[in-house]
Amino acid sequence: MREATIAGAGMTRFGVHESTLPELFADAALPAMDDAGVEAADIDALYLGNTMGGQIEGESHLAPTLASHVGLAGVPCQRFEDACATSSNAFKHAVRAVEAGHHDAVLVGGVERCSAATGRETDEMTRIFASAAHGTYERPTGLTFPGVFALLTKRHMHEYGTTEEQLAEVAVKNHYHGSLNPRAHFGKETTVEEVLEGPIVADPFHLHDCCPFSDGAAAVVVASAEVAAELDCDLVPVAGVGHATDVVPIADKAHPSVTRSARDAASQAYETARIGPDDVDVVELHDCFTGAEVLATEALGLVEDGQGGPAAAAGRTSLGGEIPVNPSGGLKAKGHPLGATGVAQLVELTEQLRGDAGDRQVEDADVGLAHNLGGDAATTVVTVLEAAR
Amino acid sequence: MREATIAGAGMTRFGVHESTLPELFADAALPAMDDAGVEAADIDALYLGNTMGGQIEGESHLAPTLASHVGLAGVPCQRFEDACATSSNAFKHAVRAVEAGHHDAVLVGGVERCSAATGRETDEMTRIFASAAHGTYERPTGLTFPGVFALLTKRHMHEYGTTEEQLAEVAVKNHYHGSLNPRAHFGKETTVEEVLEGPIVADPFHLHDCCPFSDGAAAVVVASAEVAAELDCDLVPVAGVGHATDVVPIADKAHPSVTRSARDAASQAYETARIGPDDVDVVELHDCFTGAEVLATEALGLVEDGQGGPAAAAGRTSLGGEIPVNPSGGLKAKGHPLGATGVAQLVELTEQLRGDAGDRQVEDADVGLAHNLGGDAATTVVTVLEAAR
Repeated sequence: MREATIAGAGMTRFGVHESTLPELFADAALPAMDDAGVEAADIDALYLGNTMGGQIEGESHLAPTLASHVGLAGVPCQRFEDACATSSNAFKHAVRAVEAGHHDAVLVGGVERCSAATGRETDEMTRIFASAAHGTYERPTGLTFPGVFALLTKRHMHEYGTTEEQLAEVAVKNHYHGSLNPRAHFGKETTVEEVLEGPIVADPFHLHDCCPFSDGAAAVVVASAEVAAELDCDLVPVAGVGHATDVVPIADKAHPSVTRSARDAASQAYETARIGPDDVDVVELHDCFTGAEVLATEALGLVEDGQGGPAAAAGRTSLGGEIPVNPSGGLKAKGHPLGATGVAQLVELTEQLRGDAGDRQVEDADVGLAHNLGGDAATTVVTVLEAAR
Repeated sequence: MREATIAGAGMTRFGVHESTLPELFADAALPAMDDAGVEAADIDALYLGNTMGGQIEGESHLAPTLASHVGLAGVPCQRFEDACATSSNAFKHAVRAVEAGHHDAVLVGGVERCSAATGRETDEMTRIFASAAHGTYERPTGLTFPGVFALLTKRHMHEYGTTEEQLAEVAVKNHYHGSLNPRAHFGKETTVEEVLEGPIVADPFHLHDCCPFSDGAAAVVVASAEVAAELDCDLVPVAGVGHATDVVPIADKAHPSVTRSARDAASQAYETARIGPDDVDVVELHDCFTGAEVLATEALGLVEDGQGGPAAAAGRTSLGGEIPVNPSGGLKAKGHPLGATGVAQLVELTEQLRGDAGDRQVEDADVGLAHNLGGDAATTVVTVLEAAR
């Protein structure tokens, strides 16, 4: 099996964009190809993540359109959709294809428009997103994703005494990190008071506990180590990818606050990379809500079960802390254009492991971990990247 | 690289179903698993094709829901969407994963509901399908898929003198084949006169030149040859899979009637399988419109360029003819539940290569070819299956 590497990375600012999906995609894909030092003719395939282009913008079968828009007409293309874990699953398959020798260099991209620039307001978008919950057991009750994660988080509060203040500390941290990231949707800081004074979206989440509806795109070039070594690029090896799922309905989960699929995917990724949580230097994880970050830090083994809230409040997961989580600002502050999020996490880690992350650089970052979650914590992809030696 | 085989196959009747997507999927997946002689615990992953569940039924992130509905909770799942070529691309990736040793046995399934049982009538469904055409250059003009294929076919008529009668002969043939297939949406025959007297949908297509809006599901179990050899199953080896794309807008295509992506995908599949068109005994191809079958028989090299129409009229592509095309009835008569179509073609070929196709059995069928097309002839996957020796 060959080794796969990230040879190049690019992304747009996350926020509100008026561009079409092909235009937005190109604004990430072309910089990624430039960064890798490849021409279109060097790219063998496109692995695309787009979650809800059909429902939001009436756009399906996007992969060939996006491919030809960046000069790749004719290559095999595939669109993945696995709710918010969409583009990290596209990445997994690209890594597999390169490892197996099917392709030497492939473009992995994610793109989505979720802001009001699409003509869809928050209520309508929330309803569209809820298509990823369970159609028989959940949607008919009116459950949407703030409610899904509120229920998981409430259970965690019940079990461990996690507080709203601790959740707010996650928002404060990620807003601070986002203020250091010129590509973040939210570039300004917040305070615990401001979070707690905000309107309730779904108890215990106030407005600032929730990530925004963003537009954006992200792309990486995955190349075999041999091919990457001959490119004018600063390669980042892919050490492991784990991918697991869980039953969708919250009511069916064996233990709601455990997020089983994250633990299973993390175990696979750690095993493949031959590392453990203590070896990780920087983490980008799926904080669609502050409570989701608390659950994820525990599921990934970064902190002890029950300590996700206190760890955030104590600064253990801040830049400069024991294990910096979401230096990009995370979904919370960087933004969350669904299909772009998974790859955007990898773009951030690539920059961190290259030492190119500017004001938000994690010191001595040699091992990076990405955690990308879809739906009712039902799909999770965990990726380990390592700095080139 | 290991060899991948189809160990089991199953599908529902195509037509109108009131079942939910999970129910419909199970009606194909469980028989496929039974046919392969595997239990749920033997299945390592789900590769799912669903094209427009989000737009048609408000259902996304379907893979984990469908997996747990058939006892596969927790396995890695992925949904593919590549317009009407969706589930054959899922199949390609499953084959790759088995060949590379990532999985020993995987379930590949496709499911879709497109009939009026979804609550959406023909005009609305036509508009939803058009999301797979080009959003900037085609949809704003009002172009939908009958128009797309009508334009390609009109060009072919101009170049080669293909006639409406010859197109009608394709419909007559496929309706006849469908009358032999208890799972076909349309089980009755038609005549050239009946086709030509039908209302025009998009010139040159009359109503009976067009495939119906169907509901249905299809599934196969892909297993490594080693694993399949130990199962109580009648395995069918996968000899080759080709996959190529083309620019989407018809106006940008180098030669509209050539369907470039089909020729490229076929070349790859033939090369991998080390065969040529003359070695093929039975074909399932993407006849969403009669004109599409004419173009495909030529692109696949089954008949000479320009001879697709005359070949159908002369019975060369009928059961009992030189190269039987669409013995199942094809999309035209068997039906076309978008995301299920690609895998359903493989189910038919599996039965043909096993000699289990009943009244529609092609004699001495040793090599089968499937051709599954997406969008403006912009994605094509071609698969070669061979009877076990």
